[in-house]
Amino acid sequence: MLGLMQDWPLLMHCVIDHAAQQHPQREVISRSVEGPIHHTNYAAIRRRALRLAQCLTRSGIRQGDRVATMAWNTSRHLEAWYGITGIGAIYHTVNPRLFEKELVWILNHAESRLILADLSFVPLLEKIAHVLPHIERYVILTDAAHMPSTSLRGAVAYEDWLGQVDGDFVWASLDENTAAGLCYTSGTTGEPKGVLYSHRSNLLAALSWNGGNGFGFNAAERVMAVVPMFHANGWLLPLCAPIAGAAMILPGAKLDAASLHEMAEIGRATYAAAVPTLWTMLLQYLDATGAKLSTLRRVGIGGAAVPRSLIQAYDERYGVRVDHGWGMTETSPAGTCNTPKPEVAGLEGEAELDRREKQGFPHFTVELKITDDEGTELPWDGKTAGRLKVRGPAVARAYYGRDGSVLDGEGFLDTGDIATIDPHGYMQITDRAKDLIKSGGEWISSVALENAAAGHPDIAEAAAIAVPHPRWGERPLLLVVPKPNTAPTRQEIIAFLQGKLAKWWLPDNVAFMGELPHTATGKVDKKALRLLMRDRQSAEEAELPAP
Amino acid sequence: MLGLMQDWPLLMHCVIDHAAQQHPQREVISRSVEGPIHHTNYAAIRRRALRLAQCLTRSGIRQGDRVATMAWNTSRHLEAWYGITGIGAIYHTVNPRLFEKELVWILNHAESRLILADLSFVPLLEKIAHVLPHIERYVILTDAAHMPSTSLRGAVAYEDWLGQVDGDFVWASLDENTAAGLCYTSGTTGEPKGVLYSHRSNLLAALSWNGGNGFGFNAAERVMAVVPMFHANGWLLPLCAPIAGAAMILPGAKLDAASLHEMAEIGRATYAAAVPTLWTMLLQYLDATGAKLSTLRRVGIGGAAVPRSLIQAYDERYGVRVDHGWGMTETSPAGTCNTPKPEVAGLEGEAELDRREKQGFPHFTVELKITDDEGTELPWDGKTAGRLKVRGPAVARAYYGRDGSVLDGEGFLDTGDIATIDPHGYMQITDRAKDLIKSGGEWISSVALENAAAGHPDIAEAAAIAVPHPRWGERPLLLVVPKPNTAPTRQEIIAFLQGKLAKWWLPDNVAFMGELPHTATGKVDKKALRLLMRDRQSAEEAELPAP
Repeated sequence: MLGLMQDWPLLMHCVIDHAAQQHPQREVISRSVEGPIHHTNYAAIRRRALRLAQCLTRSGIRQGDRVATMAWNTSRHLEAWYGITGIGAIYHTVNPRLFEKELVWILNHAESRLILADLSFVPLLEKIAHVLPHIERYVILTDAAHMPSTSLRGAVAYEDWLGQVDGDFVWASLDENTAAGLCYTSGTTGEPKGVLYSHRSNLLAALSWNGGNGFGFNAAERVMAVVPMFHANGWLLPLCAPIAGAAMILPGAKLDAASLHEMAEIGRATYAAAVPTLWTMLLQYLDATGAKLSTLRRVGIGGAAVPRSLIQAYDERYGVRVDHGWGMTETSPAGTCNTPKPEVAGLEGEAELDRREKQGFPHFTVELKITDDEGTELPWDGKTAGRLKVRGPAVARAYYGRDGSVLDGEGFLDTGDIATIDPHGYMQITDRAKDLIKSGGEWISSVALENAAAGHPDIAEAAAIAVPHPRWGERPLLLVVPKPNTAPTRQEIIAFLQGKLAKWWLPDNVAFMGELPHTATGKVDKKALRLLMRDRQSAEEAELPAP
Repeated sequence: MLGLMQDWPLLMHCVIDHAAQQHPQREVISRSVEGPIHHTNYAAIRRRALRLAQCLTRSGIRQGDRVATMAWNTSRHLEAWYGITGIGAIYHTVNPRLFEKELVWILNHAESRLILADLSFVPLLEKIAHVLPHIERYVILTDAAHMPSTSLRGAVAYEDWLGQVDGDFVWASLDENTAAGLCYTSGTTGEPKGVLYSHRSNLLAALSWNGGNGFGFNAAERVMAVVPMFHANGWLLPLCAPIAGAAMILPGAKLDAASLHEMAEIGRATYAAAVPTLWTMLLQYLDATGAKLSTLRRVGIGGAAVPRSLIQAYDERYGVRVDHGWGMTETSPAGTCNTPKPEVAGLEGEAELDRREKQGFPHFTVELKITDDEGTELPWDGKTAGRLKVRGPAVARAYYGRDGSVLDGEGFLDTGDIATIDPHGYMQITDRAKDLIKSGGEWISSVALENAAAGHPDIAEAAAIAVPHPRWGERPLLLVVPKPNTAPTRQEIIAFLQGKLAKWWLPDNVAFMGELPHTATGKVDKKALRLLMRDRQSAEEAELPAP
């Protein structure tokens, strides 16, 4: 017997309709790519999304078609998600920081028919357009005054384009399982893999993350979305904020510390989300300039492990609480968030930092387990590390354009991460499966090594990788970037690590670099580091000159 | 094109599975019907729900069958919801305060096959069992030591019954649209109407209400569910608390002020939800005894309009914030909640109370409109009153066992309420459609009259009804219950109302009563009042003696 409740599919347009009806004047403040700060609101964003939907329809874009965006976080990018999905088409967020070759591969694999691109990317697109046969039209996210002369096929200034229609449009009626968004993982190994979100998965993940153990946004919150919308579904902020009627602050192309600080102040941000690198950068800026954060109270950090020194610094020096989280493109990226359960609320000092350094626990609709290589579940004792697997309505079951499910027999996705889960349910990533260092048959966590090293006062960034060793198979090599005007030594660093890690986890050697290579999503590129080290004969010889 | 996300249906058992895995030790504290305070947690509740599911299956209960509960709020009732829905059966919450005739009608209409009943209701059930042909078995929610000798068919003590199985059971695999719960409206006019919730509607409503503009529960919250689980789906608290990992405090059969105060203190409740009558009662108790609320910070009130004096008293004297809300059985009952949007956050004094007296705004997934009798939408100006209509995934589209949809052409349900919506989206119920007083062709709101009268220091309760008038069609009659040891006069009361209401809204007469009749859900029974007044020739003659 079925219930007798209304048939009300979970569709993207419902979100912007709700925000426009209940929070029409709530500010969305962007740093425009053209320069000036731009103010709009949810009512206007909905009206413009309807116009975009109308333009796309007139251009022959149909349900199921991919429309690429290559854009920074601005209100135009936000309205694009709603305009594109409002006709049943799919926003395909392209990470412009990828290498050209990857960009071309992804755009061709997705067969995106149209692209909405920021001014910043016109030169790049002009360079690769001849190998992008599927793109019929290049819409440049600017107005006539700023429109460059360009050879791009069918190029039109977005504002001119929207001006051609009247916005008298009705959102498409869709099955809630209709595809809504497409985001490729950066693919540090093999070809990029496309995750195809549905309207349903986006809305369920957003509803779940808006709960009190997660974002917990209400209409008074002012959310600065620093994490780019092309990074793992923009961490759902483009849905979570309008669902709650929270204001949005969108920093556009300028992601340097001074600009971010300025945006947080202009927008009176109370919450902001970004990867650790940006928070480290901002912290250095605050410390160096004496600038304050007048309104910011809480930051969400994910995408890589957060060093405890960072958590401590924001908490103690700036009154900002760090909510450490974990997710991935394949989880929409709703995964875990580290907020205090009563069981751990009384912890203090180091014990509290130990807890906060973990990635946290999943909200309702996300299920986790850890297993050994054979798939046997491992205990939640906070010590046993295993393959982290995840299940839920906003977790991928397959990749776009690839055959077959990627799930195990119980419907879980293997995340590729190695993690522990403690008796209170707090999960901690100890490594990427492929980054583990296997010494004498036992695992050493590269992340634990890096985090411990990051606590050294003279170290700006650290990475640990495995190097071959004749006796132990592999041994850890620590690569560090010293802070400006410091000169830490190998001996000092190893001494600093003693007592913080098991003795056999200590690196045999430390290499110093001017900077570490990063992937397009801002993570340390260990594949590149391993390549760099491949020719070295042993860890003992590794002593890189600063570039 | 469909998305490639996992198929993870929204099922009731996922909620208790999540709570048991992520918050296993979180307390659920009940005042047992037998007497003592009982402590358990979500892990134990899940284990017992599995046993119940196994017992039901062994008793031949199948997917789609109705299992009635006639029970107070205790952990047994909570586990019953999960046990029943875990096999695809339907929890049919029966309001024991209904008149016997209604009770029998509802149980027979639902054709419930089994009933789980508290000890309190054994005598009542023995009295009516001979006219309940569908009930095959009476399970009494107690243990062997407290089991009464009874003639009820197949009577068994719940604890004995659970003891017969081992709990080795797997939840049923179900379509998320499968019916989960059945709740009848009390039906002040005509026959009771059954609302049939689905697993999906329950979970979506709970996810939505757990957002920051609503309950906003996190794992540190301690939720006292005073509102009975048989009242409008227990206001979703039996789902919202475990979803968030919040503790639950369940007051059992004792709903007097002293007992509620004691439970709030024992359970260290931070949040509690109940109808206004109970909050008024508790306030009087606190004022009279000097008792304090040590941990309570926030109360949810709904089910009837909240007098501003109550909001003010809790706020100013006890540091407790009142979240006024609105919903109905047909909305699961997720409707609106009055939390501050930034637009109104700066209001103070009377203006703030004006805002807080409203029922608030809907969360995402609930759509509201107001229309005239012809269905034309009315403006959101805070003045124009119209029929309140609602749409969403947790709103009924039809009633159980009745033919046809009850929705308008756009899929909205007419709530039977009359309301205004202000420019900020705050809705205020001005009346039940059937309680409006139509004077000289214009509407007078009985609720506005009652709320104004309730502000008089000597009035304990007030109700306004229409009485026939030769010239104006109808005129308002105000019926009041004076507080103990007071003797307000008609003249004093009318003078008190002057300036607070339009002159032509003032009642022509005031009648004094010792108490007002109430329905089973605690609302003033205006149908009974109108019957009482029917024989009177005019409002001028109405002057009832105290009974």
